[in-house]
Amino acid sequence: MLFELHKEDQSTKARKGILKTDHGNIETPIFMPVGTLGTVKAVKPEDLRDKIHAQIILGNAYHLYLRPGCDIIEEAGGLHRFMQWDGPILTDSGGYQIYSLSDNRELKEKGAHFKSHLDGSKHLFTPENVVEIQRVLGSDIMMLLDECPPYPCSYEYAKESMELTHRWAERGRKAFLDTESKYGHRQYQFGIIQGGTYEDLRKESTQFMTEQDFEGLAIGGLSVGEPAELMYEMADLNTDLMPAGKPRYLMGVGTPANLLHCVALGIDMFDCVMPTRNARNGQIFTRHGIINIRNAKWKNHHKVFDKEFPSDVSQKYTMSYLHHLFRNSELLGLELTSIHNLTFYLWLMEQMRKRIKDGTFSDWYAGMAEQVDQKI
Amino acid sequence: MLFELHKEDQSTKARKGILKTDHGNIETPIFMPVGTLGTVKAVKPEDLRDKIHAQIILGNAYHLYLRPGCDIIEEAGGLHRFMQWDGPILTDSGGYQIYSLSDNRELKEKGAHFKSHLDGSKHLFTPENVVEIQRVLGSDIMMLLDECPPYPCSYEYAKESMELTHRWAERGRKAFLDTESKYGHRQYQFGIIQGGTYEDLRKESTQFMTEQDFEGLAIGGLSVGEPAELMYEMADLNTDLMPAGKPRYLMGVGTPANLLHCVALGIDMFDCVMPTRNARNGQIFTRHGIINIRNAKWKNHHKVFDKEFPSDVSQKYTMSYLHHLFRNSELLGLELTSIHNLTFYLWLMEQMRKRIKDGTFSDWYAGMAEQVDQKI
Ligand SMILES: [Zn+2]
Ligand SMILES: [Zn+2]
Repeated sequence: MLFELHKEDQSTKARKGILKTDHGNIETPIFMPVGTLGTVKAVKPEDLRDKIHAQIILGNAYHLYLRPGCDIIEEAGGLHRFMQWDGPILTDSGGYQIYSLSDNRELKEKGAHFKSHLDGSKHLFTPENVVEIQRVLGSDIMMLLDECPPYPCSYEYAKESMELTHRWAERGRKAFLDTESKYGHRQYQFGIIQGGTYEDLRKESTQFMTEQDFEGLAIGGLSVGEPAELMYEMADLNTDLMPAGKPRYLMGVGTPANLLHCVALGIDMFDCVMPTRNARNGQIFTRHGIINIRNAKWKNHHKVFDKEFPSDVSQKYTMSYLHHLFRNSELLGLELTSIHNLTFYLWLMEQMRKRIKDGTFSDWYAGMAEQVDQKI
Repeated sequence: MLFELHKEDQSTKARKGILKTDHGNIETPIFMPVGTLGTVKAVKPEDLRDKIHAQIILGNAYHLYLRPGCDIIEEAGGLHRFMQWDGPILTDSGGYQIYSLSDNRELKEKGAHFKSHLDGSKHLFTPENVVEIQRVLGSDIMMLLDECPPYPCSYEYAKESMELTHRWAERGRKAFLDTESKYGHRQYQFGIIQGGTYEDLRKESTQFMTEQDFEGLAIGGLSVGEPAELMYEMADLNTDLMPAGKPRYLMGVGTPANLLHCVALGIDMFDCVMPTRNARNGQIFTRHGIINIRNAKWKNHHKVFDKEFPSDVSQKYTMSYLHHLFRNSELLGLELTSIHNLTFYLWLMEQMRKRIKDGTFSDWYAGMAEQVDQKI
């Protein structure tokens, strides 16, 4: 049994639980730092563990298949060993990335044909070989191959795309059940709910994916450009129909405020490039809002940005110094803000878990979402 | 008293000693990582201390004067506080950098006129204001303003340039003695020997600088493109005439092999961008030679590069993984190799100190220099 549900909030749909993998336990709700290419950008594995307190990280089958290639990772003994991260790993299949290369793509029943964004070489991802690739990667949780429609898209497009994803899901589940882990640790497979932003399709897809008996369920196709309110509406609708005993992963979300709102809607797992990508652009997430460290107003600000926050970046380096690092494109700046932002994201999830546990979540989360969303 | 000489080697001119500053003691011979702009590129201050075991780092008055500017560093309470490095700092005056902008430079008796390489604004560095700037930076050891002639250069040019440096040295020493530390800790000033590659000028300059009674002496104007043998010859000639009781700093040197040879010639202190700059190009320095991690031959090499070497980069990450990081321009690669190369440089200095102490330096250093200089 991958998931144990420990507590449900009284006034919201928030829940607290635990995911048990052979690489360690994960307390939910949780945020998963993104390490697309076998590295969480600018962050050392030891800092992920000791400073950021990451409990699980993300890899991407599409990217890793192209570079370094499955042969290299298999020779290395799997992704955990390759990248020196011995905690849990979830790998996305790359359905979303193949969609983002839509110019190069012909979708066929068999699978997703695509051209490499690196050298233009041609490849085919099928529901089956995507399982095989993730067996080679050795991730603790693998995702199905799905098709992620754009936003906005027509009802007809969304429906056909969803039906394709459903047929792929059956094939993918079969491939999963017919194969085995290569490195001795257990692997789990998550289904992905699609359906665009259409209520009846979302419902149909939720019901379909629930029936396949995956170890967990993801909500896909959101956070692709739709308004936040619509994303919340769809997530709400999905979680209403999702079984309580399975973990719920909202893919590609989001801002700190998004996380707070979506936990209230019953989501257990999140991933997003935002904390690291925005860090590299000089955006710092804090308890009191969002700082743009490149802004000239920080040049002479000789205080740290949050002396009480448990991250040595926020306690140790002045705004003036961080501003100096960014203004001069110093690599240390990228590293410090990346570490800090992830520390903040993981801290925020911990606060949510504590408050779900002690019953103070519902009174707190909306105000906190407003606070962390402010520009400082 | 800044320097204590503890031991002189019997067969070479190698020496072991200690520099005592208010920010801590420094065992010599030592290598000083370069942190031009208030950061050793890609390395966190805590890693400098805990992983690399740096005992003193370098800053650059010219660069810091331009960015972030002396006002910012003074408001911050000095460079140590600005950059969160509480160990010893040596600052170079920038004489070498002004020379590298020679298109924009008019040398005058008064000082060095130059245009900022950032915005073309005009500035004047004088022997006096360079002391003042370094008072503001608060470095433990400050360098004189000197003129560093190119290689090759005519005897006449070298002689006139040296004489200018000498006149500036007298003014700089006076400015130093007439002013005080701003932050309560002691500061020291080093003279800089010039004279191009002309024996009689080198001798004259050594004698002149020795007479000024600086707390230490640097050998400048080497490692500017001349052959290594000529650099060794000049350093040898300089150290023959330098007083035993003063620390000897060879500026801008060099490769691991250079360090071994120059310690044998009686040098105590070194700085160079090579370990960090070359790290960012994928060059890794090891006990067994130099690795270019971008080379395709490492793609499938699933072993670490030195399991016995005391650096977690060399013990933990496979060549294949490091190759992957560099091939994909991942920031983690730059950080790991920067940390490793500096760890290696500091380790090499420690080996030298041990061997000077136990009398095995002379039998060891030349073979070691050959070994570390090989391409792997
Ligand atoms: Zn493992
Ligand atoms: Zn201090």
